[in-house]
Amino acid sequence: MADTNRQFVLGGRPDGKPDLDAFELRETAIPEPGRGEVLVRTLYLSVDPYMRGRMRDRDSYAEPWAVGDRLEGHVVGEVVASEHDDWEAGEFVFGRLYWSEYAVADGADLTPVDPTPENVTLPSYLGVLGMPGRTAYFGTLDVVEPGPGDTVVVSGAAGAVGSTVGQIAGLAGARVVGFAGTAEKVSLLEDAFGFDAAVNYAATEDHRAALDEAAPGGVDGYFDNVGGPVSDAVLTRLAVDARVAVCGQIAHYNEEGVPTGPRTLPQLIASRARVEGFLVSDYASRFDRANERLREWVVSGDVTHRESVVEGFERAPEAFLGLFAGENVGKQVVAVAEPSE
Amino acid sequence: MADTNRQFVLGGRPDGKPDLDAFELRETAIPEPGRGEVLVRTLYLSVDPYMRGRMRDRDSYAEPWAVGDRLEGHVVGEVVASEHDDWEAGEFVFGRLYWSEYAVADGADLTPVDPTPENVTLPSYLGVLGMPGRTAYFGTLDVVEPGPGDTVVVSGAAGAVGSTVGQIAGLAGARVVGFAGTAEKVSLLEDAFGFDAAVNYAATEDHRAALDEAAPGGVDGYFDNVGGPVSDAVLTRLAVDARVAVCGQIAHYNEEGVPTGPRTLPQLIASRARVEGFLVSDYASRFDRANERLREWVVSGDVTHRESVVEGFERAPEAFLGLFAGENVGKQVVAVAEPSE
Repeated sequence: MADTNRQFVLGGRPDGKPDLDAFELRETAIPEPGRGEVLVRTLYLSVDPYMRGRMRDRDSYAEPWAVGDRLEGHVVGEVVASEHDDWEAGEFVFGRLYWSEYAVADGADLTPVDPTPENVTLPSYLGVLGMPGRTAYFGTLDVVEPGPGDTVVVSGAAGAVGSTVGQIAGLAGARVVGFAGTAEKVSLLEDAFGFDAAVNYAATEDHRAALDEAAPGGVDGYFDNVGGPVSDAVLTRLAVDARVAVCGQIAHYNEEGVPTGPRTLPQLIASRARVEGFLVSDYASRFDRANERLREWVVSGDVTHRESVVEGFERAPEAFLGLFAGENVGKQVVAVAEPSE
Repeated sequence: MADTNRQFVLGGRPDGKPDLDAFELRETAIPEPGRGEVLVRTLYLSVDPYMRGRMRDRDSYAEPWAVGDRLEGHVVGEVVASEHDDWEAGEFVFGRLYWSEYAVADGADLTPVDPTPENVTLPSYLGVLGMPGRTAYFGTLDVVEPGPGDTVVVSGAAGAVGSTVGQIAGLAGARVVGFAGTAEKVSLLEDAFGFDAAVNYAATEDHRAALDEAAPGGVDGYFDNVGGPVSDAVLTRLAVDARVAVCGQIAHYNEEGVPTGPRTLPQLIASRARVEGFLVSDYASRFDRANERLREWVVSGDVTHRESVVEGFERAPEAFLGLFAGENVGKQVVAVAEPSE
């Protein structure tokens, strides 16, 4: 075990697109667990688009970080030392911890991680079996409500959330169309994730024409992770009674001021469409059910998952910044350390 | 009885803001009712914003008119001659007829109009007891879902739909804030229609500041008849789980191409708000219940109504164009003829 702990704190509030200056690496002592606490060594750290919002000096659904604050994040780790009856050294855990190599957690706040079932991996607990998977689950089933005969469009379709959305919508009987930003991602959508059609929006000038080809009967459901020109096109093609789940708008997270674009409201009258923002945290009372379903689907192979792994704790900021360049396929994680045995 | 019938047909498709060239007045013979039909003399003709959409060469929820087509419209009239067992001369009826002084209707398509109950008038069957009232009823109760503790904002609040929305939301226990375009309308909202607060948007530069004063706890429900800067401000002030009913967007009906403005979708995530377009025609199975409730409220005085009356059939185009200049208070109708006795 190393002598020191490294952690990232907020180095400064980014103005527009963040860069490495937003992150400051600090060395501290490895903390010691008190009564009821557990010392966790980070194996995998999750970086997520919503964290951009916490870098702003503005209240939103996630509390803003202050400059100098430890960056919080979801972690899959290994218990190093435990002062809590439920845990012992060597066990794998999930925790809402920090961008740090080591952290102390209340033992009651950790949950067990079992990487042994078929198709399950340690980092999958940060993706399809974690918050992104549950986000896909509730946004798809509760907001988009797909069914046989429906066409469901997903933006950011090759990401952690989008790839799961497409598969859940497909299991519900819908025809599924994904938008992603590289030819490699489009192949993956069609070949690995079972999308019925996929569009490389970065290689497509006329998104509406692409949509008309991929979804000739219009769009019954739209799960939006991105915003921007793809959403602009989709909103012109909503079928009657369409449902739009607004999960993320990563195209706009780095914009200062109010982004502008085609007006949405006039498009909703003839279609009687419903556009709804949602936060997975509102569904906490149903997390156990969602976790169980997602695990069954992963084990059975009905839902496939990918992780993009950046190696090395010090590269966590780079992994985060890569989210805004669309560098990840599936869930972006940072591999911080190997399990001890 | 006059010898000739006058009617308006679509004179040409307007490009942008319509003017009198969109209307062509024609003289024809007064039609004669066949078996099962009724000859109706128009007393009051309804002009409605949605008719602008029917002047476009584009399918929407209402079928487009062709140039030279008779303009359809809701009418309160008097039976002149009847070849249908249910109707006899002198009776008042409501029909989906034409911008014409006389029209023949299938007797089965007419409904009775009774102007004798307290607070009920002949033209009120084109407003609070007609399609605008039902629009307000379903949009408010089914989409906005107001309740005690809620703040509901209404745009176009002094219009036929908006004034009814505000009163229904108030009956449901909500605090109600209206936006309208003149000082006279604002007084009417507060004094006659019982709004808790009202804003003259035409005299207000900072709509958000006005909203913060009128709705300091944010907006739980928004019934939008207008779009434009008022909606832009309201959408920045949505409370958690807010409901937005998109009924009309009159600010944009005369715009060619796609109107632009602040992006809506990024504003919906933190609030988990739901924005929903709706059409009253989707609620047809519940019209009888709505009609009954609205009539009870009008008779009891719980819901007050106003009509703006333009006198003279030939002035119908002028009355229609006035809708886009906000000239009406309450329901805009055209008084075409006096009842025969």
